[in-house]
Amino acid sequence: MLKAADIMTKDVATIRSSATVAQAVELMNSRGWRALIVERRHDQDAYGIITEADIVYKVIAFGKDPAKLRVHEIMSKPCMAINPNLGVAYVARLFAEYHLLRAPVIQGKLLGIISLSDIISESKFVEEPQEVLLEEELHHAVENARSICDRTSPSSKECGAAWDTVDELQAEIAHQQSKKIFKTAFEEYCEEFPEAMQGRVFDAWCSG
Amino acid sequence: MLKAADIMTKDVATIRSSATVAQAVELMNSRGWRALIVERRHDQDAYGIITEADIVYKVIAFGKDPAKLRVHEIMSKPCMAINPNLGVAYVARLFAEYHLLRAPVIQGKLLGIISLSDIISESKFVEEPQEVLLEEELHHAVENARSICDRTSPSSKECGAAWDTVDELQAEIAHQQSKKIFKTAFEEYCEEFPEAMQGRVFDAWCSG
Amino acid sequence: MLKAADIMTKDVATIRSSATVAQAVELMNSRGWRALIVERRHDQDAYGIITEADIVYKVIAFGKDPAKLRVHEIMSKPCMAINPNLGVAYVARLFAEYHLLRAPVIQGKLLGIISLSDIISESKFVEEPQEVLLEEELHHAVENARSICDRTSPSSKECGAAWDTVDELQAEIAHQQSKKIFKTAFEEYCEEFPEAMQGRVFDAWCSG
Amino acid sequence: MLKAADIMTKDVATIRSSATVAQAVELMNSRGWRALIVERRHDQDAYGIITEADIVYKVIAFGKDPAKLRVHEIMSKPCMAINPNLGVAYVARLFAEYHLLRAPVIQGKLLGIISLSDIISESKFVEEPQEVLLEEELHHAVENARSICDRTSPSSKECGAAWDTVDELQAEIAHQQSKKIFKTAFEEYCEEFPEAMQGRVFDAWCSG
Amino acid sequence: MLKAADIMTKDVATIRSSATVAQAVELMNSRGWRALIVERRHDQDAYGIITEADIVYKVIAFGKDPAKLRVHEIMSKPCMAINPNLGVAYVARLFAEYHLLRAPVIQGKLLGIISLSDIISESKFVEEPQEVLLEEELHHAVENARSICDRTSPSSKECGAAWDTVDELQAEIAHQQSKKIFKTAFEEYCEEFPEAMQGRVFDAWCSG
Amino acid sequence: MLKAADIMTKDVATIRSSATVAQAVELMNSRGWRALIVERRHDQDAYGIITEADIVYKVIAFGKDPAKLRVHEIMSKPCMAINPNLGVAYVARLFAEYHLLRAPVIQGKLLGIISLSDIISESKFVEEPQEVLLEEELHHAVENARSICDRTSPSSKECGAAWDTVDELQAEIAHQQSKKIFKTAFEEYCEEFPEAMQGRVFDAWCSG
Repeated sequence: MLKAADIMTKDVATIRSSATVAQAVELMNSRGWRALIVERRHDQDAYGIITEADIVYKVIAFGKDPAKLRVHEIMSKPCMAINPNLGVAYVARLFAEYHLLRAPVIQGKLLGIISLSDIISESKFVEEPQEVLLEEELHHAVENARSICDRTSPSSKECGAAWDTVDELQAEIAHQQSKKIFKTAFEEYCEEFPEAMQGRVFDAWCSG
Repeated sequence: MLKAADIMTKDVATIRSSATVAQAVELMNSRGWRALIVERRHDQDAYGIITEADIVYKVIAFGKDPAKLRVHEIMSKPCMAINPNLGVAYVARLFAEYHLLRAPVIQGKLLGIISLSDIISESKFVEEPQEVLLEEELHHAVENARSICDRTSPSSKECGAAWDTVDELQAEIAHQQSKKIFKTAFEEYCEEFPEAMQGRVFDAWCSG
Repeated sequence: MLKAADIMTKDVATIRSSATVAQAVELMNSRGWRALIVERRHDQDAYGIITEADIVYKVIAFGKDPAKLRVHEIMSKPCMAINPNLGVAYVARLFAEYHLLRAPVIQGKLLGIISLSDIISESKFVEEPQEVLLEEELHHAVENARSICDRTSPSSKECGAAWDTVDELQAEIAHQQSKKIFKTAFEEYCEEFPEAMQGRVFDAWCSG
Repeated sequence: MLKAADIMTKDVATIRSSATVAQAVELMNSRGWRALIVERRHDQDAYGIITEADIVYKVIAFGKDPAKLRVHEIMSKPCMAINPNLGVAYVARLFAEYHLLRAPVIQGKLLGIISLSDIISESKFVEEPQEVLLEEELHHAVENARSICDRTSPSSKECGAAWDTVDELQAEIAHQQSKKIFKTAFEEYCEEFPEAMQGRVFDAWCSG
Repeated sequence: MLKAADIMTKDVATIRSSATVAQAVELMNSRGWRALIVERRHDQDAYGIITEADIVYKVIAFGKDPAKLRVHEIMSKPCMAINPNLGVAYVARLFAEYHLLRAPVIQGKLLGIISLSDIISESKFVEEPQEVLLEEELHHAVENARSICDRTSPSSKECGAAWDTVDELQAEIAHQQSKKIFKTAFEEYCEEFPEAMQGRVFDAWCSG
Repeated sequence: MLKAADIMTKDVATIRSSATVAQAVELMNSRGWRALIVERRHDQDAYGIITEADIVYKVIAFGKDPAKLRVHEIMSKPCMAINPNLGVAYVARLFAEYHLLRAPVIQGKLLGIISLSDIISESKFVEEPQEVLLEEELHHAVENARSICDRTSPSSKECGAAWDTVDELQAEIAHQQSKKIFKTAFEEYCEEFPEAMQGRVFDAWCSG
C-alpha cells in the first residue's frame, strides 16, 4: 500500500508566526503555494498552518487589512500532523474525519505536505481500489487458513493462529468500508468443523 | 467593489449525475478541474457539485471502487449558488459561514465557478482592503451630512436623510468587521445639535 | 412539481440594519411576522435576515436591552436565498442541509419568504408524495425506452438517448431518497439485449 | 422573574409513536399545532417530540410518503425538557445552547410546551431587560453590604456574608452577559477597607 | 429497567460561581471529583456544572492563571439535568445525543450525578442487553394479543387494545435500535384475520 | 515546559479490532481502564481507540448486545496521536480543538496514553501558569534585546536578530491566549530608536 511519504509534496514553504498576513500572501503567490507551515520556536512547540481558507474566511470575509494582521492571529496551531508511514486510505480517512484540506507530514521534523489533490493524483485508487485489493487478500488468507487447518487439524494452534489473521483482516475490511459482517469466515468454517472452536484460545485478544 | 462575476472562472465542466465516479475523476484530471457541476434535468431541478473533497472523503477514505459508484451517490445537491452581482467581500463571508471551498455562480443558468484561489488572486484585498475603503466612504458621508445640515438645518428632512445614509453605512461596517459601535456618527452630531433628533422621522426603518 | 414561487408568502417586511432590535420586535409584533428581511444598500450588497431565533438566542438569552442593540449586531447576512423556480422537494432539502427555518426568495429582487409552515401547508406531500410520482415517471420512462428500442434497435442512437433519460431519472430518485441502486433499469435491459451496450456512446456525460 | 410555567402554552397535543406521519400531519393541521409531544409508555420512558422541522427535513426533503412512515422514525426522543420553575432568561439560554425551537415543560408529567414565539411574546424583555433589572439589584445589594459593614465592621461575619451575596450576584450578571469582571465590588471595597479581607472566611464556597 | 436514580453517585460536591478556578481545582483534587455542580442562587435559577474538560479546554489550553479566573467564566449553565426516573438506556441516549460526559440528577433539588463510568459499571448491559429484554417483552405481548383475540374476536375492542400495546412496544424497539420495521406484528396478524383491521378504532392515537 | 511524555500514563491496554465489545468491557473493568488502544495490523496501518464514550453512545444508548458487536464497529480509527515531545499546553489545545478526552502518545510505536485527568493532575498549571512563565520569558527577552542593541547599535544585525526572537515569543503568547497585540515590544522600541527599523531585514520570515 502507498503511504503518506510516497504521495506528499516535498516543496513546503514555512513562515514565522510574527509575519504579517500580507507577507504570507506574497510568499504564497510567489510560487503558487496554497498553504504555509508555521515554524516551531523549540522542540516542545507545535507546528501551525495557514491556508487559503484562513485568508478568505478570516481576512477577506471581514474586510480586514492583511498588512495589519499577523499570521498567529489566523493560523491553526497545533495543526494535525500526518505520520509518513500511514497508508493512503487512512490518510484519506483522517482528512474525512477532521475535514482537512491539507496537512503537514511530520516525524521529528517537517518532511512534506499532503493536499486533497495529492491524494487524488498520487494514490492509485482508480486502478487499484482498496476494496478489490483487500478482498483478494482476504480470499488468500482464508485459503491459507483452510489449507493449514487441513494439514494440521481444525483444533491445532497453527489453525487458530491462521484464523486470527483472517479475523483481523476481515475486521479491517468491515471497518474501512463501514460494513457489518453478518457471519465471519471463521464462523462459517466452524459450522463445517465445530471442533475448531474448541481448540482456539481466545485470550489472544488482549496484550495487557 | 468587485463582484462575483468579475472573479469567477468561466471554464466550468459539467457532468451527469448518472456518470460513474471513475468518469468524473477522468474528466477532472483531463483539464485539472478540482470540481464539476452536476447538470439539472429540468428548470425546477437544482444544480449539484462534486469536488476533490467528495472523492477523498467518500470514496478513497472508504477504499471504494470508483467504477462502481455513481456521481449522485457522492455529490452535494442542491449546492449553494452565488449571485453574479454579489460583492467579493460577501462572497468570502458566504464561503466562511458555510465552509465552502468552491461554488457555482448561477443566474437562471450556470455562469461560472468561484474557488478560494479565485477570491484570493482576483480580489484586491491586499492593495485595497475593504476596511480602508469603507472608512473613507464613511468619512465622506459624514462630511456630506454635516454640510447638508449646515446648508439646510439640523432638523431638515434633507439632513435626516443624509444621516440615514451614514447610519446604514456605519451599520454595514460594524457588521462586516463584527465590531460594536459605541456611539454612532449621528449620535455624536446630536450632542452638538440636539434639535437634529427632533426633526428626524424614524419610521423610515420599515418598508412593510 | 410545485416550485418555491408557488408556496412562498409574498407579504414580507423589511427593516434597515441600523434600526434597533426593539424596533424590529415592534414591527414583528405588529403583524405577526416571525422574521424580517434586512434591506440591501446597493446591488452588490447581500440581503440579511433577522428571525425569532436571533432574538431569543442572542438578546433574551443574554438578558440584553433590545433598545441598545441594533439589527446588524444579530442578523444573519448574507442569508441563504431561494431561487423562485426551485422545486419544493429541493427547497426542503436545502432547509434540511442548512438547518433553515425560513429563507427569502430572491431573483434580482426580493420576491417573498418561505417558512417550514409554508412548505408543510402548501406542498401536497401527503396527497402526492414525490416518491410515488417519481416511481410513476420512471415506470413510464422505462416503458418508453423499451418501446423506442423495439421500434428502432437496441443499438440505435434513439434507444441510447432514451436510456440516458432513464438513467438520469433513476439517479435523481436514488439521490433524493438517499438510496443505493443495485442494478439500473438499463443494466437489466442490457442483460436481455447485450447489443444495447455497444450502440451506446457514453461520452455524452460531459459537456466540457 | 417570569418562569417557564408563566409563559408556556398549556394546549399541547400528544401522539403515539406508532402513529403514521400522515396522522401526525393531520393532527397538527387540525389546530395549527407546530409540534406534538410523543407519549411515554411507562414512568421510566422518555418523552419525545415531533416538529415541523422533522417533517420538512426528514420526510419532504427525501420525497417520502408520510403514510408509510411512522412517528418513531422521525421524532426526537428523549427530548430536552424544561423545568417549570426555570427563569425565562435561562429558558432562552437553553434554547440558544441546544438550538431548540420548542420544548415541553415537564415535572413528573407533561405540563405545557414553550416555543420561540412564547418566549418573545410573553417575556417582558423589551420593557424590562434583565441587564437593567440585574444592575439595579446589584446596586441595592452593594448599598446593603456597605450599610451592614458600616453598622457592624468591615471584618464582621455579617459584612462578609453580605459581600458573598454581592459576589454571587455579580458572577451571575457576568455569566449571563458573557462579560469579564475586572474588579468585583468587593475588591473595590477592600481597597478602601483592607481589614474586610481578613475577616472573611472563604471556605464558604464548598458545600461538600 | 434500572433508572437514573439507581445508578447515580450521591456524593456530589457543589461550588459557588464566584469561586476561583484554582479553588475549584483544589476541591476536585481533594476527593477525586471530576466535576462540581454550581449552586443556584434562587429557585428560578439554573444549575451549572464545571468539569475536567472545562479546565483543560478553557484554562490550560490557553495558559491562563486559574487563580485569576472565576468558575462562572468557564462553567456550563444551564446544564442538562437528568430526571431520576428515566430509564438507563434513555440516559445513555441523552448522553449520546448531547455528547455529555456527566450530568446532575435533579428533581426539585440536586440528587446526584451520573458519569459515563456510572452508566457502564452500574447498568447491566452486558448480562441483560435491552434488545434481548425488549424482544422477549414483545414476544409475550404478541402472544398475549393473539390469545385475547382468540378468546374474544379479531374485531373486539379488547383485541384492538392489545394490539395497540404491541404497536407501541414495537415502535419503541424500532426507535431505540434505529431500525426500520417492514411489517408490524399487527400487520402480520391482519393478513391472517382481515376482520381485525375493521374492528380497530385508530383514533386512539391522539389525546388532544 | 512539561511535555506529553512527562504526563502520560504508561500502563496502556490494547485489544484486537475483531474482539467483541463484551470482551473489551471485561478488559476495561479488570483494571479500571477507561479506554483501550486498538492494535495495528502492520506499519502502514493506523491505531484505533475505544473509550467509555463509545460504549455508552453506540452500544448502551441503542440497547445493543455487546456480545454481538465487535470492537471495529464502534472504535475510532485512525485516532488522533500525540507526539511525546509536545508541550503540555499544546496537548491541552489539541484536546480543546478536537474535543478529545484521551489520546495515545505515539512515536513509531505506542508509548502511553494521556487523559484529561493526567493533564490536570500532572501539569503544574495552578502553581506555574503558562501566562506567568511566558510573561517572565518575554520580560527577559526584551531586556536582552535592549541590552544587545545598546552594546552594538539599533541598526545592527545582532539587535535585529534579538528583536526577531522577541517578536516570535510575543506572537506565541498572543496566539496561546487568543489576544490581540496592539503594539509589539519592537514597535515600541522603534518609536524610541527609529533607526532600528531600517537596519532590520525582514526577509527572515520565510525559510522557503
